[in-house]
Amino acid sequence: MFTFAARFLRSETGIIRVDVKNVLGRDIPAEIENYGRVKPYGGAFRLKPENKLLSSLDEAIEKTGLKDGMTISFHHHFRNGDKVVNLVMEAIRRKGIKDIHIAASGLFPCHDVLVPMVEDGTIRKLTFSTIAKGGLTAAIMDGKFREPCVIQSHGARARAILDGDLHIDVAFIAAPCCDTGGNMCGIGGKSNCGLLSFAYADAAFADKVVAVTDGLTSAGVDSVEISHDHVDYVVEVDSIGDSEGIMYGSTVPSDKPEKLRIAEMVALLLDKSGYIKDGMSFQTGASSIGLSVATYVEKVMKEKGVKGSFCLGGITRYLDGMINEGLFEKAQSVQIFDIDVLKTLSKSLNHIAQGSDRYGNPRNPNALVNFLDIMILGATEVDLDFNVNVITSSSGRIITAPGGHTDCAAGAKIAVVVQESIRRGASTICDRVCCITTPGETVDVLVTELGIAVNPLRQDLVKALEGSGLPLMTIGEMKALADAKATAGAGELKTGGRIVAVVEYRDGSVIDVIRQSATE
Amino acid sequence: MFTFAARFLRSETGIIRVDVKNVLGRDIPAEIENYGRVKPYGGAFRLKPENKLLSSLDEAIEKTGLKDGMTISFHHHFRNGDKVVNLVMEAIRRKGIKDIHIAASGLFPCHDVLVPMVEDGTIRKLTFSTIAKGGLTAAIMDGKFREPCVIQSHGARARAILDGDLHIDVAFIAAPCCDTGGNMCGIGGKSNCGLLSFAYADAAFADKVVAVTDGLTSAGVDSVEISHDHVDYVVEVDSIGDSEGIMYGSTVPSDKPEKLRIAEMVALLLDKSGYIKDGMSFQTGASSIGLSVATYVEKVMKEKGVKGSFCLGGITRYLDGMINEGLFEKAQSVQIFDIDVLKTLSKSLNHIAQGSDRYGNPRNPNALVNFLDIMILGATEVDLDFNVNVITSSSGRIITAPGGHTDCAAGAKIAVVVQESIRRGASTICDRVCCITTPGETVDVLVTELGIAVNPLRQDLVKALEGSGLPLMTIGEMKALADAKATAGAGELKTGGRIVAVVEYRDGSVIDVIRQSATE
Repeated sequence: MFTFAARFLRSETGIIRVDVKNVLGRDIPAEIENYGRVKPYGGAFRLKPENKLLSSLDEAIEKTGLKDGMTISFHHHFRNGDKVVNLVMEAIRRKGIKDIHIAASGLFPCHDVLVPMVEDGTIRKLTFSTIAKGGLTAAIMDGKFREPCVIQSHGARARAILDGDLHIDVAFIAAPCCDTGGNMCGIGGKSNCGLLSFAYADAAFADKVVAVTDGLTSAGVDSVEISHDHVDYVVEVDSIGDSEGIMYGSTVPSDKPEKLRIAEMVALLLDKSGYIKDGMSFQTGASSIGLSVATYVEKVMKEKGVKGSFCLGGITRYLDGMINEGLFEKAQSVQIFDIDVLKTLSKSLNHIAQGSDRYGNPRNPNALVNFLDIMILGATEVDLDFNVNVITSSSGRIITAPGGHTDCAAGAKIAVVVQESIRRGASTICDRVCCITTPGETVDVLVTELGIAVNPLRQDLVKALEGSGLPLMTIGEMKALADAKATAGAGELKTGGRIVAVVEYRDGSVIDVIRQSATE
Repeated sequence: MFTFAARFLRSETGIIRVDVKNVLGRDIPAEIENYGRVKPYGGAFRLKPENKLLSSLDEAIEKTGLKDGMTISFHHHFRNGDKVVNLVMEAIRRKGIKDIHIAASGLFPCHDVLVPMVEDGTIRKLTFSTIAKGGLTAAIMDGKFREPCVIQSHGARARAILDGDLHIDVAFIAAPCCDTGGNMCGIGGKSNCGLLSFAYADAAFADKVVAVTDGLTSAGVDSVEISHDHVDYVVEVDSIGDSEGIMYGSTVPSDKPEKLRIAEMVALLLDKSGYIKDGMSFQTGASSIGLSVATYVEKVMKEKGVKGSFCLGGITRYLDGMINEGLFEKAQSVQIFDIDVLKTLSKSLNHIAQGSDRYGNPRNPNALVNFLDIMILGATEVDLDFNVNVITSSSGRIITAPGGHTDCAAGAKIAVVVQESIRRGASTICDRVCCITTPGETVDVLVTELGIAVNPLRQDLVKALEGSGLPLMTIGEMKALADAKATAGAGELKTGGRIVAVVEYRDGSVIDVIRQSATE
């Protein structure tokens, strides 16, 4: 309708300028003083929206510029049901890319197919916060990785990413619900995993971010956990995971008498030391003792009419039940352990999704672990300085990883380690743990079926429990009782091998190393 | 307990290394092959959390390095109740900083105290998406700003920030609820403003971000709208705003017969053209005709048993009521216009907070405006090409700004302009609008009390309405009727003055300019 008409004019300030009519026929200078060059309007739909949707993971690998030696990341909210790690790594191997560093928040036996990729040089190293014993832990112990693997707590991982110590080249994020712009959410598709918490930092700090989804929607995601503005590409695949896999490692409250005795003592200890009170916050993992503790704590809360503030961390059906009963106001959640909890998640105002930075980054003044009253911790071994091993067996082989263990121990007002004093016939209390995961400085109490040992650093707690009638003893006394009960020695520890894994503390310092070993 | 013990060893690879014991007595090499230099563990609490809390805005200005010529930004969710713009600018003036560019999502008469700062050189320029007639609009028209102001829609502002065209040096974000880490939310404090939507892009892209709050909490914000990881500093002040101010510019459904006739015709038009149907989405502003349209649309939806999907944009009590009645599933909200809606916001699962990028950035494939079915638009003038002016009066003086007008017109399936054909005695339909805000290409229908004019570009709509019994006419016919009815001419437009404002379209192109004028 209108044509561009250029005109030369002498302006008041003496500058020759070229005036134009835009397509609507408005007289607009080509350059406006103190504004700059004018981009003339050329129609309402001249700017096309970005297209982030790619046809395959292969295309994503090409577009992101993924190449030899790079660090790529994944989250583990599907736990043993995840399919994305394998899909991506198979595509990377097909392309002949080598020396990849996988920085996954967690890895499970479902990822054992990666072992041949370690052997053929596709993978050089792992960094993880959660792991379950399987092919990958065996590969680490057998020295198959070219470089030492790095083990970090959830908070340590967030800190490392935010501080630039863990630089991620490409983050691949399994997204149950994702729109074409890259907005993502952990629920709302056919394969739900609850939350994407462990991927928030990856999304914000990785050079390139690829959303991998089997729940693509064009209209948009409502409860956006990861915003499109962090996302470069979206790839649709047949299946990102099996929701049932989130139950892996989770269990039910124990009915073993020793474990029930521990759980009962913990509840009494917490009550008598004044931690069970209105506004209390609480975290316990998905171990059978931890869940038993939850049931005993629930009982005390009900008897006393106590209303807590929040449950933290990985949410089980037991914690969810306590929220639904009004015993806690809400869950500050980083992962979901139960498929039943998944089903009601979208309709609940009481589950707040939190990333691992907010959960436990030691640099974050509002890390939720710092507002946690009570933490129930598991252990494979505890030593006389209250140092805790949750990574290796007593023979020094990796069997799990700290998750939020270290973060919560450091942050909680009372951190209680619960374990049976005897495992496989051997005492779990030792002079020196095989691998320090969580320093004794951050551990307040050890409870075994033999009794309660308070860390001497907590004289306030020792005093508060005087005359409580609880079976208090020193950790030395507890060790002597356990040793007397033991029918076997600890696994033989072979030291001196090559370092196969480095255990980083929350601040990135090295708290321990794990050396190659051939024994189980 | 342990001391650092350095040892020199010859490793298998022949490298001399220094081994250390960390404070827990673990033997760890000072350097690990393929890991690098070891930072030895030195205690659980060696890393101190960041302290972002500053004592005053003056300190924030110093710490952010704010200096002459910089661009600073604000959001306008308090509308005419905002206090933060003035507090910050007064502190800037006290420091003698000059030539500031204020890029605020909106400005109101409560900000008239800035006018002397324009005069004394503290402020050189404004960029805004929303404005209300007052001292600042007068200062613009009177040529008081050293540089042309820039007027952008909400979506245009988001695009400009994300694309780097609008670079923000320091964003000051009024935060009703904020923790010491900088997590922010629009509700939960003593001065609520509902949402922080318009500040999301600022938080993500500004060089420095300062949260300004009167609702500081140490424990942490639950419903985080802006995450701490974007925030550099937190400043506590006595009051950030007056919640009542959000009502400014909002009104009640009209009872004027002409306006009711328009609203009724719009509802009939939407119904007969098939837009009132299950799953429909809807936006109308807070104008009296817009609200009247909502009540007529509500009536039709109830009669037909229609359930809509979402309401978009600024949420009034009327839209909130329709959601509560189940007529719409949810609100995709960018701001709240009613204090009653604020009160229930935290308990509602049906209000989804959205940023302006998600709302209307033309580069965003999932911009919600693109999923909008029905948009009801206001206007000060419409011309024969359906171009709409919503910025100036017919005499060319700025009286308001587009907000989401342009974005919704471009995105919605049907964009209906509603206005009375006569304002202050003069016809509102003209040959050529004084300032093009929204191009006719994106406007589908004009409805005045005289009848309905469909844009000839929408032949499908013309066809759908054939035989509907609605008072259809061409826009030329409607103009003739309005002109015959008019008792006064349009305001006299004085052109040729200096350019005082540049109107940018969604893609950053210049759709029009506004020139200095001395007449009201």
